[in-house]
Amino acid sequence: MLTPDELRGLVEDYLGGLALTPELHGQAESVRYALEGGGKRVRPVLCLATAEAAGASPEEALPAAAALELVHSFSLVHDDLPALDDDQLRRGRPSTWAAYGEAVGILAGDALLAEAFRLVLSYPAPHAGRELAQATLGMIGGQYLDVTGTAPDEETLHRLKTGCLFAAAVGLALWVAEVPEAEQAPWRAFGGELGLLFQIVDDILDGDGYVVTHGAAEARRLADEAAGRAQAALDGIGADTSVLEEIVSGLKARTA
Amino acid sequence: MLTPDELRGLVEDYLGGLALTPELHGQAESVRYALEGGGKRVRPVLCLATAEAAGASPEEALPAAAALELVHSFSLVHDDLPALDDDQLRRGRPSTWAAYGEAVGILAGDALLAEAFRLVLSYPAPHAGRELAQATLGMIGGQYLDVTGTAPDEETLHRLKTGCLFAAAVGLALWVAEVPEAEQAPWRAFGGELGLLFQIVDDILDGDGYVVTHGAAEARRLADEAAGRAQAALDGIGADTSVLEEIVSGLKARTA
Repeated sequence: MLTPDELRGLVEDYLGGLALTPELHGQAESVRYALEGGGKRVRPVLCLATAEAAGASPEEALPAAAALELVHSFSLVHDDLPALDDDQLRRGRPSTWAAYGEAVGILAGDALLAEAFRLVLSYPAPHAGRELAQATLGMIGGQYLDVTGTAPDEETLHRLKTGCLFAAAVGLALWVAEVPEAEQAPWRAFGGELGLLFQIVDDILDGDGYVVTHGAAEARRLADEAAGRAQAALDGIGADTSVLEEIVSGLKARTA
Repeated sequence: MLTPDELRGLVEDYLGGLALTPELHGQAESVRYALEGGGKRVRPVLCLATAEAAGASPEEALPAAAALELVHSFSLVHDDLPALDDDQLRRGRPSTWAAYGEAVGILAGDALLAEAFRLVLSYPAPHAGRELAQATLGMIGGQYLDVTGTAPDEETLHRLKTGCLFAAAVGLALWVAEVPEAEQAPWRAFGGELGLLFQIVDDILDGDGYVVTHGAAEARRLADEAAGRAQAALDGIGADTSVLEEIVSGLKARTA
């Protein structure tokens, strides 16, 4: 079993060597720019670790893992646009639109999304692609609720904006590892809790969201509970989930 | 065999009754708005007619045909944005961003693209989805060349901006009708010529592109030649292609 850091290395190498569609011409440069820049690669690492725990090789899961990172990157590139969050900086360097202009920034997001589907459609069966499409649509719905301030509640917002893609990271791995649908439930429960854990810790680090609604101490308690339920879901799976446990601990304890 | 008008009716009914992903929440309204508005539905009608000529029922091809229209609509919604063409009007009514604001307009395009992949992934095999992803990436590359003024030549620009999706309209129909890859070449030659015909006639009607480069008379001659080659490709196919011939004549003679 590869460690999370080793899996992250696989993801970086794969993304760095990714052959983009030649017909993108010069647009490819902004797509690569958006994909670089030091993200933590949490979703693709989770996908690879789940795939390996479920009996596939991490290498088999790389196209699916990369597709998840491309969808995540697409959402960041469009969220940063002036009409949405108007962020000129992303991880300490100019956001994609700030570096390449708004027009190319919009097209970069579009290209990332289409490349993601190209990657996930490299598998013989359509299940992973279907799950990625559903997750992407949920994420877009969450972004709409956020931008328009029309979310019915915080939980719905987070489930869509963050949860969908975390759940898909586990779901895509299950399709790649050909885990029968009837056996997917505990894995998927794990994915759901992990997305929640990630979101609450994010809010604790940023001092917003759950911290504003519940206070810092209660947010910490909710994070620990989500981590506990994620661990309990793993305990119900008859497989070596040690690397996934490490990911739970890492997300629970993260400080950046 | 259904006529082009009957096929257009099928497309309109299908798009009008299309169940969008519930997780889109209020974003669905702008997606529906973008899909209405009286487009000619050339690409989905071409897809259905090709599918029927190749032995499938038009109904089987409806998800693929609708996916093509959603990708086309995605491209219009993003092209109309202030940072790209800055069009406030589309077919005589406010463009999507002008009606719903820029943020929701950007997300509407994103949602159209993701819904398109959801639709095309409803088939058991991934081939149609793969072809749609490639065509979309080509179209985005064409848009990049256009926006940045970096197209090597007009032909490359049109092949990407218009040709890719016309070619995919034929290609997706072939996958739906399960035409073996070895027998697809004449159909695909037809699709390529039809895309070129559409583009040249578009330029003749708008007085730009081919008309500027070649003059009106020469543009007309090039259009007639493309129509002739499209017809010749159909002549080489051992199937009832009468409706496709009608589409060629219609595109050649269109005045709007």
